[in-house]
Amino acid sequence: MACCGGCLCCQCCCNEGETRTPEELTILGETREDEDEILPRKDYESLDYDRCINEPFLEVLEGLDNKKARRYEAIKWILVFAIGVSTGLTGLFVDFFVRLFTQLKFSLVGQSVEECSENGCLALSLLELLALNMVFVFISSVLVLIEPVAAGSGIPEIKSYLNGVKIPGIVRLRTFICKVTGVLFAVAGGLFVGKEGPMIHSGAIVGAGLPQFQSITFKKIRFHFPYFRSDRDKRDFVSAGAAAGVAAAFGAPIGGTLFSLEEGSSFWNQALTWKVLFCSMSATFTLNFFRSGINFNKWGSFQLPGLLNFGEFKCVDGDKTCHLWTAVDLAFFVLMGVAGGLLGALFNCINKRLAKYRMRNVHPKARFIRLLESLLVCMVTTLVIFVASVTLGECRDLVSTNNNTSTQGSVNEEVNSTIRRFFCYNNTYNDMATLFFNPQEVAIHQLFHQNATFSPVTLLLFFVLYFFLSCWTYGVSVPSGLFVPSLLCGASLGRLVANVLKINFHMQIYSGTFALIGAAAFLGGVVRMTISLTVILIESTNEITYGLPIMITLMVAKWTGDFFNKGIYDIHIHLKGVPLLEWETEVEMDKLTASDIMEPNLTYVYPHTRIQSLVSILRTTVYHAFPVVTENRDNEKEFMKGNILIGNNIRFKKSSVLTRAGEQRRRCQSMKSYPSSELRNVCDEQTAVEPAEEGQDILQQMLERRHVPYPNLYPDQSPSEEWTLEERFRPLTFHGLILRSQLVNLLICGVCYAENQSSASQPRLSHSEMTEDYPRFPDIHDLDLALLNPRMIVDVTPYMNPCPYTVSPNTCVSQVFNLFRTMGLRHLPVVNAVGEIVGIITRHNLTHEFLVAKLRQHYITI
Amino acid sequence: MACCGGCLCCQCCCNEGETRTPEELTILGETREDEDEILPRKDYESLDYDRCINEPFLEVLEGLDNKKARRYEAIKWILVFAIGVSTGLTGLFVDFFVRLFTQLKFSLVGQSVEECSENGCLALSLLELLALNMVFVFISSVLVLIEPVAAGSGIPEIKSYLNGVKIPGIVRLRTFICKVTGVLFAVAGGLFVGKEGPMIHSGAIVGAGLPQFQSITFKKIRFHFPYFRSDRDKRDFVSAGAAAGVAAAFGAPIGGTLFSLEEGSSFWNQALTWKVLFCSMSATFTLNFFRSGINFNKWGSFQLPGLLNFGEFKCVDGDKTCHLWTAVDLAFFVLMGVAGGLLGALFNCINKRLAKYRMRNVHPKARFIRLLESLLVCMVTTLVIFVASVTLGECRDLVSTNNNTSTQGSVNEEVNSTIRRFFCYNNTYNDMATLFFNPQEVAIHQLFHQNATFSPVTLLLFFVLYFFLSCWTYGVSVPSGLFVPSLLCGASLGRLVANVLKINFHMQIYSGTFALIGAAAFLGGVVRMTISLTVILIESTNEITYGLPIMITLMVAKWTGDFFNKGIYDIHIHLKGVPLLEWETEVEMDKLTASDIMEPNLTYVYPHTRIQSLVSILRTTVYHAFPVVTENRDNEKEFMKGNILIGNNIRFKKSSVLTRAGEQRRRCQSMKSYPSSELRNVCDEQTAVEPAEEGQDILQQMLERRHVPYPNLYPDQSPSEEWTLEERFRPLTFHGLILRSQLVNLLICGVCYAENQSSASQPRLSHSEMTEDYPRFPDIHDLDLALLNPRMIVDVTPYMNPCPYTVSPNTCVSQVFNLFRTMGLRHLPVVNAVGEIVGIITRHNLTHEFLVAKLRQHYITI
Repeated sequence: MACCGGCLCCQCCCNEGETRTPEELTILGETREDEDEILPRKDYESLDYDRCINEPFLEVLEGLDNKKARRYEAIKWILVFAIGVSTGLTGLFVDFFVRLFTQLKFSLVGQSVEECSENGCLALSLLELLALNMVFVFISSVLVLIEPVAAGSGIPEIKSYLNGVKIPGIVRLRTFICKVTGVLFAVAGGLFVGKEGPMIHSGAIVGAGLPQFQSITFKKIRFHFPYFRSDRDKRDFVSAGAAAGVAAAFGAPIGGTLFSLEEGSSFWNQALTWKVLFCSMSATFTLNFFRSGINFNKWGSFQLPGLLNFGEFKCVDGDKTCHLWTAVDLAFFVLMGVAGGLLGALFNCINKRLAKYRMRNVHPKARFIRLLESLLVCMVTTLVIFVASVTLGECRDLVSTNNNTSTQGSVNEEVNSTIRRFFCYNNTYNDMATLFFNPQEVAIHQLFHQNATFSPVTLLLFFVLYFFLSCWTYGVSVPSGLFVPSLLCGASLGRLVANVLKINFHMQIYSGTFALIGAAAFLGGVVRMTISLTVILIESTNEITYGLPIMITLMVAKWTGDFFNKGIYDIHIHLKGVPLLEWETEVEMDKLTASDIMEPNLTYVYPHTRIQSLVSILRTTVYHAFPVVTENRDNEKEFMKGNILIGNNIRFKKSSVLTRAGEQRRRCQSMKSYPSSELRNVCDEQTAVEPAEEGQDILQQMLERRHVPYPNLYPDQSPSEEWTLEERFRPLTFHGLILRSQLVNLLICGVCYAENQSSASQPRLSHSEMTEDYPRFPDIHDLDLALLNPRMIVDVTPYMNPCPYTVSPNTCVSQVFNLFRTMGLRHLPVVNAVGEIVGIITRHNLTHEFLVAKLRQHYITI
Repeated sequence: MACCGGCLCCQCCCNEGETRTPEELTILGETREDEDEILPRKDYESLDYDRCINEPFLEVLEGLDNKKARRYEAIKWILVFAIGVSTGLTGLFVDFFVRLFTQLKFSLVGQSVEECSENGCLALSLLELLALNMVFVFISSVLVLIEPVAAGSGIPEIKSYLNGVKIPGIVRLRTFICKVTGVLFAVAGGLFVGKEGPMIHSGAIVGAGLPQFQSITFKKIRFHFPYFRSDRDKRDFVSAGAAAGVAAAFGAPIGGTLFSLEEGSSFWNQALTWKVLFCSMSATFTLNFFRSGINFNKWGSFQLPGLLNFGEFKCVDGDKTCHLWTAVDLAFFVLMGVAGGLLGALFNCINKRLAKYRMRNVHPKARFIRLLESLLVCMVTTLVIFVASVTLGECRDLVSTNNNTSTQGSVNEEVNSTIRRFFCYNNTYNDMATLFFNPQEVAIHQLFHQNATFSPVTLLLFFVLYFFLSCWTYGVSVPSGLFVPSLLCGASLGRLVANVLKINFHMQIYSGTFALIGAAAFLGGVVRMTISLTVILIESTNEITYGLPIMITLMVAKWTGDFFNKGIYDIHIHLKGVPLLEWETEVEMDKLTASDIMEPNLTYVYPHTRIQSLVSILRTTVYHAFPVVTENRDNEKEFMKGNILIGNNIRFKKSSVLTRAGEQRRRCQSMKSYPSSELRNVCDEQTAVEPAEEGQDILQQMLERRHVPYPNLYPDQSPSEEWTLEERFRPLTFHGLILRSQLVNLLICGVCYAENQSSASQPRLSHSEMTEDYPRFPDIHDLDLALLNPRMIVDVTPYMNPCPYTVSPNTCVSQVFNLFRTMGLRHLPVVNAVGEIVGIITRHNLTHEFLVAKLRQHYITI
């Protein structure tokens, strides 16, 4: 029944995109939150994973020998260790206080309930519980109001970040504090939220922040540690931190590493992966060490791996007929996978509608409305928990738990101690209360390991209530993970299946396995993660033999769910309008080429440009990078006399057009130079004669290319309406890319030379001066123009990226996409067969929506 | 003592490269097997992971809709499943027969020994054992003589293949048969070899072969299944197969997947990784299913994960003071890691010298010499086993094993049943015989789980004997893995440490953990794998809490070992002269640019070339790819009249030089085309008027680039000695790359047109016709020239790769390396700022040795 509802509902969800007209699609890239379909927003910037090897960088490199490189590497190892340990400690902090508050709350209320069940003052117990929960949730929600990006699980944001999208504020210290404290109170407040997603986000923030040794939130935290001030290093550390977060949350270091790899778009970098794994291990074992010490007072032993662990799945010894699972069970697991996929799709569909409703009706209003919503959710949840426990629970015998041998004693002691007896006497217990009146992790343990059965009705009711409440809760403005609620939901369903099979069909099965598979199926149906989730679940169960069933269930759940809609994280990324790049393009997209999707309207700078032009370009455009070009016309040699600026441009052009002849000659010389010292002297003499035009020998001159730049002095480079078509499309030879931030930095630092000087007189900036302000570079509008002489000239060539990866206009989209995503690029120039730039491709030109629109155009035009 | 020997020996091993002079280094790339230093050989080809998107491919693409793409994807899933199952079955086959033969042998000889220890006929028992072993090893060695690449572990070969180097014969069916059967007899013959490495190789062959549905070894196997006939698909399947091999060998599906990722150079491709994991799971559980069924008669349960598994590490229940490991133990693990690294380095050093000796003195001689060597190794091994067991063993009490509770009963029953009593009575057993007179896996189990201690002297002797014998054995011409011998070696050492700590220092430790860590340390010291080995060992122990100690031990072992020499696989790859690409270049290499390392002497073809020129190029050069170029001179427009061939070349040039103007115009048109249908009609009319010169409007003509090709008709393209410098270095605009195999194919299929026809009359080849002969394309020398008309012209443009990735000459080496390795390229053209090709970079220009030589040149010239 629920499945059918899911189908219908979700099909309408996912098919609504089909109704868009081509006209609508051509204006892609604008935010239209009020409409049904959210398109990728243009205001997200990309991270720049590719290195910009310009002159300041080469200077750094020149001073770098293998010894220094090794020291640099050692610092990285220490930092990833520190990140791991800090993430582990963060997890410990959250866990400790959640435990404290929850125990306090349940013992207080439990006592009151037991007293009141005699005195009939249940309303008082309810009020007590309600008051406590509301206070906790209030604190959590206020923290989110302070830093709105702390809301939710944080996985969509981290996924976007690792994908290469810069989302403002997500890796700031303030976010960290709000997230960590917020999730603590949200969980303690009895909301149906997990702390695993926020743990991952926290780990990522630790990764991003720790190696910077400074904070923007707290200006006083500012040590001099000018390394790792680049998007590339930061993203590497964020990968490590996110992995450590997963590792701490689930006790799954390998799963954490794979999570980072699955979400991070970069290529498989062995050195990085090895560090990430080490970071994850550090986090897991830090947490393990302290928890074992604090909880069991066994310092030095390592017995409690992650915040969430599933206990030990084990057959009772001596029972030779007991198997955790058999080949026959696999068939049921496949069916459960299908069910999980369908229910997950339904969950996602409802949550998507809810999120859209919130975006339209809640977010635009005053902030305290959101606060009220969280309090409302809290109130309803508390009421449901209380009423369901009191009225819907069934009293079940405790007898069956005594079958255990001594082996499982310790496990069952723990499980039994969390049983709730509400209104049940004579060695019975209230099964609904046992599930609801415990921390969620304990309820999962109960479903996995409690031998006493839960009644099927209770399990079904529990599932339905939990399903809808957790669906409502995800998206409320508190930090809220989704893993634990989904696992609990799925586990109850799996346990239900196990009960039915065991009691009605008298099958020899292990209930715990079915509960686990149910949990995996539902979680897989909701989040649709593949490799990393498989490994996380295997590691959490600490039982390698569950590999196959978990994998098959997750595969089936994902395929079933993907039939209807996307995973919940992708849905929320989509709703935020983040231009996420998928893993690969669809096969059909190869009908498009780079020239079909590139942005052909460019704004350029020349190698030597007047400050007035630069300022005007920077003020009138919003581009983040500008191609550095020279004009490319024949027979203009006569123009090139007498003017220094042109001379500079020409010299640049000459040195960059390396001909094969020159190259070969240089190579021959260098080859010959050591056997014959005379020849070297000849070369030296030659260069001494013509220091400026080094290596200008006869052959070189003979082959000298006749392209010299067009003497268009100090043009305002931004395309304006008055330009003729010819001006707009003059052929431009591409020499490099310069970022907006670099240009602004050059202007601020006064890097320029006067017209009557040579460009060599321009002051030089070091690499650390260039990256000093990372990650927030000053804006052009903050620049005091009075301090600048607009007639001065800036030579941008030492600071540009002289050789970014480029593609030819005929390259098909899959190759472009591959290059862009794998190398983590930000701007990909499209250069034709004669070296002229014809367009630029950015992340926005490669999003699925943009490609679909372009493909539609392609079909219309042919 | 052994450590110091290792240091000295290895330092001389690894420092010998420093003595090379620059003159020597300039002739890099030649095989100099007789010299001490082996340089990468030039005769290895690269695999081509990048896709060549030419016209036949686009035709295929045109016919491909999403439905077909999905079917194609489904076929891939079925194939990886089949690969997994087949690999699992291969493992089962090997395991079954090894078990059978070994049991047969040991029961026969054991019986004889027990009889003879009374009768004094021990020599007879020895002869019996010797005869059996010699026969087994003889068979194994003969198989390797039939197919020499089946020797050794196969991991170096698979590593090279996944790195992108084509090694002849390694993925053939004949190799598979020889390897599988060979390893079976080698293990059964009592050699100190493992079956894990060969399992990985076998899995890789299954992966490479199965999706081809044909065999070159057995010509009769030839189904019509023309998909996946490309290096790209083949390498993907080989990844899956190799992962399945690891998974089957160790019961480690995640470890297998990570092994493929670690060794495969390609980028992290989620879809592929997910398939690889599925393939690994299939292999593990196929093996598991059948082994559980056959060995325990429990069909449908899954109890025996891999060929090698380490049993369950578990504290005795009730013993609250027992921990598998504590924080204090970590310090010992680090020390053991150092020891493992040193011993591993010593092992590698000795083995390297041995391998060099073999290359010089054994391999050049008649083949049967190798056979004799294997028999000699077998004889010595057998003698050592026998003599050591009989004379050096100590009789130890069995008492301590009775301490166990019922929990571990089943495990210990198995362990106890494999205890050997040679000459020991009264409830004692012979500890040396227990280690030597059992399959190696059983001996590892003994060291991990046997509570009765082994005497320290026995352990030390065992280690020393095993160390040197297994070092000698690896490299003998039998299929031989290295994992199990290394594990056994290390485990004995670890157990020794545990004994010393337990007895002499009375520490509360778990011996099994120390044995495991010792095994990890030594194995890590020998093979120097990182991520995948960590995960493989964690999965084999099925105990996630061993993650941290194993990882730390492996890290320390690797770092210690790397101080002296490389891992054993890398050493053997190096000895074979395979041009392997490392993970990344050293930082120093960034002082070089693409132009420093490229090959500037190129041979080109023109878009339209006469058959006689092509044949001459193909016959006189050995290059595997040729750039397709047009000449690039100013003011040659007057030459272009009247000749069709030039006309064709010019038309090609025109269409490929896409200007921004034309692009922008086209885009505007397509944008406008649907709102206004009138405008579209105008466009249609325009194209109807000028069908050949489509889109030649006024603006286009105005901006038409004036570069037209030089009318150098039918030149012999190969550079010859008579060429003037000018001819040799004329500027050449780059248009694409064409492979040798493609050119030969075009010639064979008669793809050409007559001089008086248009190039449109040239016959067209489909994609499947182009790839029909994969993977062995015909040679140019097999071509019957009489069938060709040398005056006909071939238009190569539809078949070339029109837009390979390119780099600019100034790109620094790390970026070039990154692009090359990540994208799995074979040829990387270096193109300057005006679109002229100045050189080509291949794998050989990026090997470490080549870069070091170039860097040295660079330092000398500056």
